[in-house]
Amino acid sequence: MNLYFSCSLTGGRNDQPVYAAIADYLLAQGHTVPTAHLAHSEVMQEEATIDPAAVYHRDIRWLDECDALVAEVSTPSHGVGYEIAYALLKGKPVLCCHRAGVRVSKMITGNSEPALRVEAYADADEALRVVQKFLSVISQLPLR
Amino acid sequence: MNLYFSCSLTGGRNDQPVYAAIADYLLAQGHTVPTAHLAHSEVMQEEATIDPAAVYHRDIRWLDECDALVAEVSTPSHGVGYEIAYALLKGKPVLCCHRAGVRVSKMITGNSEPALRVEAYADADEALRVVQKFLSVISQLPLR
Repeated sequence: MNLYFSCSLTGGRNDQPVYAAIADYLLAQGHTVPTAHLAHSEVMQEEATIDPAAVYHRDIRWLDECDALVAEVSTPSHGVGYEIAYALLKGKPVLCCHRAGVRVSKMITGNSEPALRVEAYADADEALRVVQKFLSVISQLPLR
Repeated sequence: MNLYFSCSLTGGRNDQPVYAAIADYLLAQGHTVPTAHLAHSEVMQEEATIDPAAVYHRDIRWLDECDALVAEVSTPSHGVGYEIAYALLKGKPVLCCHRAGVRVSKMITGNSEPALRVEAYADADEALRVVQKFLSVISQLPLR
């Protein structure tokens, strides 16, 4: 599948090791992950030099092309929130996963869009199991 | 006009005095602002006791009913990012204003949706002038 992985950039990078674990897991499973580089620690310097309009148009194109969105939502982010709404309104399956115990926006935890799943995890291993379960469910849906 | 004012709740309340200044300004101009209470300092305790699904359904209904969205985006927030995308995809005019000098997501600063305006302000007085200018422009559009 073509999977858009969404994580905080400008909002903060505290959860970067989990971002990298999720992106690497998705790639190792043979999926296409156009945003995988955003999960890694070197990305902030690289992204800082790119024109904002180029980033926006690139990310919207990747969102339009993807089969589903996997978002890590422990760290608040306007971009991730934007991408979640955009994907849901385009009818794509969305997983929002977050560290257990963090406060997450009620626009996500209270969201009743049927294509959305929200899951907490205790550590990186459990995050990968949450992702695996989501992929298992959506792989049984007809591809868009 | 019916104006949805969007500001960070779970993401952080550092900019709360500006949120209150903007919401009070919109009300004083005679607009309907269903979210005005979210701009004030007492709101966190009140909102904490409300069911997430009730908040989500209330906010989506308010978004569907509004003529335009005014968002303060200095503090990262999934909910605010979600609301910006939702309003733009529903064809509503959106203002994103932020303190000058803060880093804002490229999904906002690089966004080319014609209904979006992004503006920096130096202080609360300038924030109100930015809001006033936005309202002046959209008041000349045909109402939806």
